[in-house]
Amino acid sequence: MATLADIGVSAAINLFSALAFLLAFAILRLQPINDRVYFPKWYLKGVRSSPSSTGAVLRKFVNLDYTSYLRFLAWMPSALKMPELELIEHAGLDSAVYLRIYLLGLKIFVPITLLGFAILVPVNYTNDTLESLKVDYSEIDKLSISNVPKGSDRFWTHLVMAYAFTFWTCYVLLKEYEKVASMRLHFLASARRRPDQFTVLVSNVPPDPDESIDELVEHFFLVNHPPDYLAHQLVYDANKLTKIVKKKKKMQNWLDFYQLRFERNPSKKPTCKTGFLGLWGRRVDAIEYYQSETAKLSKEEVDERDRIMKNPKSIMPAAFVSFRTRWGAAVCAQTQQTRNPTIWLTMWAPEPRDVYWNNLAIPFVQLTVRRLIVAVAFFLLAFFFMIPIAFVQSLANIEGIEKSVPFLKPLIEKRLVKSIIQGFLPGIALKIFLILLPTILMQMSKFEGFVALSSLERRAASKYYLFLLINVFLGNVIAGTALQQLNTFIHQSVSEFPRTVGVAIPMKASFFITYVMVDGWAGVAGEILRLKPLIIYHLKNFFLVKTEKDREEAMDPGSFGFATSEPQIQLYFLLGLAYAVVTPFLLPYIIIFFGFAYLVFRHQIINVYNQEYESGAAFWPAVHGRIISALIISQVLLFGLMSTKKAANSTPFLVALPVLTIWFHKFCKGRYEPAFKKYPLQEAIMKDTLERAKEPNMDLRRYLLNAYIHPVLKEVEGGACFPTFDDGGELEAVRVPTKRLSQRNTPAPSRK
Amino acid sequence: MATLADIGVSAAINLFSALAFLLAFAILRLQPINDRVYFPKWYLKGVRSSPSSTGAVLRKFVNLDYTSYLRFLAWMPSALKMPELELIEHAGLDSAVYLRIYLLGLKIFVPITLLGFAILVPVNYTNDTLESLKVDYSEIDKLSISNVPKGSDRFWTHLVMAYAFTFWTCYVLLKEYEKVASMRLHFLASARRRPDQFTVLVSNVPPDPDESIDELVEHFFLVNHPPDYLAHQLVYDANKLTKIVKKKKKMQNWLDFYQLRFERNPSKKPTCKTGFLGLWGRRVDAIEYYQSETAKLSKEEVDERDRIMKNPKSIMPAAFVSFRTRWGAAVCAQTQQTRNPTIWLTMWAPEPRDVYWNNLAIPFVQLTVRRLIVAVAFFLLAFFFMIPIAFVQSLANIEGIEKSVPFLKPLIEKRLVKSIIQGFLPGIALKIFLILLPTILMQMSKFEGFVALSSLERRAASKYYLFLLINVFLGNVIAGTALQQLNTFIHQSVSEFPRTVGVAIPMKASFFITYVMVDGWAGVAGEILRLKPLIIYHLKNFFLVKTEKDREEAMDPGSFGFATSEPQIQLYFLLGLAYAVVTPFLLPYIIIFFGFAYLVFRHQIINVYNQEYESGAAFWPAVHGRIISALIISQVLLFGLMSTKKAANSTPFLVALPVLTIWFHKFCKGRYEPAFKKYPLQEAIMKDTLERAKEPNMDLRRYLLNAYIHPVLKEVEGGACFPTFDDGGELEAVRVPTKRLSQRNTPAPSRK
Repeated sequence: MATLADIGVSAAINLFSALAFLLAFAILRLQPINDRVYFPKWYLKGVRSSPSSTGAVLRKFVNLDYTSYLRFLAWMPSALKMPELELIEHAGLDSAVYLRIYLLGLKIFVPITLLGFAILVPVNYTNDTLESLKVDYSEIDKLSISNVPKGSDRFWTHLVMAYAFTFWTCYVLLKEYEKVASMRLHFLASARRRPDQFTVLVSNVPPDPDESIDELVEHFFLVNHPPDYLAHQLVYDANKLTKIVKKKKKMQNWLDFYQLRFERNPSKKPTCKTGFLGLWGRRVDAIEYYQSETAKLSKEEVDERDRIMKNPKSIMPAAFVSFRTRWGAAVCAQTQQTRNPTIWLTMWAPEPRDVYWNNLAIPFVQLTVRRLIVAVAFFLLAFFFMIPIAFVQSLANIEGIEKSVPFLKPLIEKRLVKSIIQGFLPGIALKIFLILLPTILMQMSKFEGFVALSSLERRAASKYYLFLLINVFLGNVIAGTALQQLNTFIHQSVSEFPRTVGVAIPMKASFFITYVMVDGWAGVAGEILRLKPLIIYHLKNFFLVKTEKDREEAMDPGSFGFATSEPQIQLYFLLGLAYAVVTPFLLPYIIIFFGFAYLVFRHQIINVYNQEYESGAAFWPAVHGRIISALIISQVLLFGLMSTKKAANSTPFLVALPVLTIWFHKFCKGRYEPAFKKYPLQEAIMKDTLERAKEPNMDLRRYLLNAYIHPVLKEVEGGACFPTFDDGGELEAVRVPTKRLSQRNTPAPSRK
Repeated sequence: MATLADIGVSAAINLFSALAFLLAFAILRLQPINDRVYFPKWYLKGVRSSPSSTGAVLRKFVNLDYTSYLRFLAWMPSALKMPELELIEHAGLDSAVYLRIYLLGLKIFVPITLLGFAILVPVNYTNDTLESLKVDYSEIDKLSISNVPKGSDRFWTHLVMAYAFTFWTCYVLLKEYEKVASMRLHFLASARRRPDQFTVLVSNVPPDPDESIDELVEHFFLVNHPPDYLAHQLVYDANKLTKIVKKKKKMQNWLDFYQLRFERNPSKKPTCKTGFLGLWGRRVDAIEYYQSETAKLSKEEVDERDRIMKNPKSIMPAAFVSFRTRWGAAVCAQTQQTRNPTIWLTMWAPEPRDVYWNNLAIPFVQLTVRRLIVAVAFFLLAFFFMIPIAFVQSLANIEGIEKSVPFLKPLIEKRLVKSIIQGFLPGIALKIFLILLPTILMQMSKFEGFVALSSLERRAASKYYLFLLINVFLGNVIAGTALQQLNTFIHQSVSEFPRTVGVAIPMKASFFITYVMVDGWAGVAGEILRLKPLIIYHLKNFFLVKTEKDREEAMDPGSFGFATSEPQIQLYFLLGLAYAVVTPFLLPYIIIFFGFAYLVFRHQIINVYNQEYESGAAFWPAVHGRIISALIISQVLLFGLMSTKKAANSTPFLVALPVLTIWFHKFCKGRYEPAFKKYPLQEAIMKDTLERAKEPNMDLRRYLLNAYIHPVLKEVEGGACFPTFDDGGELEAVRVPTKRLSQRNTPAPSRK
């Protein structure tokens, strides 16, 4: 049993380590040499550039201006200073709304904490149940519901508080949903013209024996959307070309490197080996070798591009169809095209940056099969993941290692080494699995066949949340693996399960307080320090960076990673709501987490992260839904707990809470969710009219010309001359100058 | 325990009574006097009329042609003779597809029965578990899974059969869904032009301080659907007018009656009393009195109509908006109009006959509240309905009656009377409740705010099915009220519940066989006899019918009553699927039910029922979904049963069945359901193009002019001159001659 003092020590340690992280950050970020690690966003924006090479060499690497160290917490107010509108402009709506999740946590939990401490803590504390029971108890338990005697009328307070907390949470959620929905609509309706406003993604184009896909798409939309069809963009299978382009880039980079070396030291011709990693093979003249390799790959590139263009098999049965007006696109995206609802499927085209090109050509039947497979696989993963890990652990013990690698035996037998291995080995398999988990979940989501990166992230996030809920929350509350829980759940009665979990909840309060501090506080402090990117950047810079372009690539700003970070926030919502009535003492820790994380992530979003795509806060319904589910879980658990407390008078009144909450969710879904799924015609036509009045001669066709070409086709020389918009045989070959800046914001066509 | 002999006797009795019903029907239907009861559909179609008054009076009432009696089963082949296409033409798609539900039952269960009897019955019978156990058992149990010893390898047979039955059922369901979807699309695309193809129902028009609803609707659609908006039809609150019209009709009828009497017997002026039911009050000249009353009501009618027209408050915030093309209507119905998804809601307009006018003006928030209330109310109704009934029963005992009506005491104390009262009274409260139940459920659905009669029926049907599932199926299997089951369910473990129910399943086989015979066979035979309409018609004809119009109204063909009859069929699907593996002996009874019901309902649909509206088989997704749910229930119960049989090797393989079935359901939903919810643009535009080519000068405005006027406004004199289509201030007042025939197919604006 952790006492208040234990918690205090733990809090002090965690606060201290968080402060140490912040201090380290404050010092490191001031060094010019780290500038690209802590402010990459500004480099990408073109506002900052590498420190000029004039001046002392030392000053290029270390900041000698001691006054700047005095203001080592100066980043905090400056992170808060940027107004939200500017933030949206600077980092996009996704990032701005993501920050609102932390704010939402504060909005929900600050009043709940105040109320809890003002009312529940005194009510709980002024009993002596725990003393009279003469059991081992801690101070925290004295503040919790455990200290109220069975059958006491004081439970009415908890009941009323449960209602108050639910209503407050729902009220804040409602307001927030309203705000985010209007932000999204405003964002979508904002003055800037974007290609995806005019474009619809058509998938599952049926094969036709007489017409090519190109003709088929054109004829279909000319016939069925007569007033507004403008043009379409075919989707090519460019996976092989992507590989060639990647390889050529690498070769080009080496070529640049050797040329640079030769320029600096013209006396010595650089040489290299052609074999694996340049470690063996024939020694050749490096510049000549890479020149010939690059030339070879350039030819391959062009050949492959020509093959893609000529071979009708490389055209996938999908297309981006553009319309003359936003109205036309809105109509096409929201309607069913043919009798058969599995062909000619239309949906809003994701942003060009947001498209996940590999999934554009999966037929309907295969999609449903894939979802079934992933659902079963995820179930097995969530409940049975401990089995293979336990198996690995059983193999990876001292005896096993001694057997398989006998010559290490003397080393292993040493006391210190042995204890380290015994202490760490069992944990390592689990740790590796947990590190890999988000990647595994993302792969599962990709297999399911979503066509936008944003929807992949949302999908992976919901899987991750379920995993955390089952294995972290329930797993720690009733102390057992998910498999054991499943077993308990199946063999226990429906009313028994919430009771078992509910009773365990107050006992686990001190554990979760420590969890919030270690995982939450320290995790956020680690986030701002960016230790891993810092080390990797410097390693790369020292060993690998050969050119200025390399250095840019070594920056790796990353993104806020919705798929992993949002489920973790949701876990804190769940903890806060579950403990709000039971042990309000836990709430301040949650509040500190939300406040601190808000500060840090705001700073990171302004200075570091570079969001790959913009989905217009499409994730909000999922965020809202998960908070609601946390609310319902907390209500059911409270019901289970109260029913063991023999508070027969008050407990039945709790039944209405989940019913009302589910109804509230349905109401919100009907009221606000369409704003995230559909595009109102009124908005579309307003925008169209405005634009027609402002720019009557706008050449929309030219504007949309290259928007939805596979990025790798754009990169290949002459790619912009691709016959992209088929205009009834008349090819418009317009070369669009690729601006370095805009291209840099379009990093990779897809992540691994 | 019912033995085979018991079942045989019961079957004989039921068969005999069914045959007696059929014989009675065969005789009664040949009598000309009953013609309007057994062939009303043909009267409504205008093909038949009352027997001519020439010839013998006797022949008008009784059929004396004895040869026609010899072919007393002749209606059976003739019921089957009409091909499906003609049936759709004759009775509508709803009726034709409704019949396919019975056919579907045959398609599913005939092969299952053959397989079950060929494989499962021998496997079960060739054991001697029941004999060795020396328990009381019946022959039926020897044929069922109960006779297989625990832990036997023979359970593999049942496992394989469970898979085979599931696959067969799913295959048939898939084929059927495909067929019905294509029938629906064909029906919708059929050559006939219908007003609802061009019309969209807009509800929740927001109030505007500057514009009337009329102007508002016009401006909104002119702006947001510029190419296709044609006109709109306001919705008036005509509830008061409906009452006046009804009253006037009654008065008019009495007037006709007295005038007829006066014509026949001019010597005596008919008189009547003005008081309640003509029993007391001042005696007046009947013709004069009713003439003045009718005139008064006519004036009231006109006043009320004028009031509705002039008073802007009687315009409801909803409208029927018509488009120039089907394409425009399809687009409008499928898209979101404004930012706020709770205003300007658009949906396909139901057929004019299908509109439920009272619900057209319920605001969005109120709708969600109403659904919550109904959900809670239905839950209480399904699980706690026994409580008030038990209360009534406890009041309505002998002692209670003697106390409250002491003067009846001597009568009640008589032995026979006493036993009748004691035997019947407790059942009567329940019986009355069960008779009222469909009406209660329909009222609940109306309260939920659906705007089409067809959707009201669908909604009531799903409630009724749930009620039957809980109270008839589960209630009889585990023998207890729903409340007790709820209790068991809550306090039993998740895996225990299917086990409890599963184990009880084979024991209840003989009960359900009797149930199928009594409720199914006899019920269907009763349906064809139409005893209640027959008696009511003759009573009305004798006492009330004053004019030819009255006689027409006394016919009351009714409809097949989806809301009550479909859930009952579903109960048989559930019984069949649940017993298919367990006790195949039950299946032939189900097959006889489906075959017999198909025959009878086909006859009734051809000759009797007059469907009020046509929804284009919109109920099929619900039918399909309920059969799927029955399949899943049967699988879970089988799993529960098998797990008690210690068939440890085979049982786990059953887990995959519900997963696969749910997946199949999802697949079907994605593949076919859109055909029932959306209207493909390709279809719409094809139809538009065809029509434009065929009738380039068609005046669509005139065609749609009066389609969506509240039927009561049409009836009021001069109603057709209503300013219906607001054409920018220019009123088009065209009087459309109401054809008697078409009006008769539009019976009432809404049912009670």
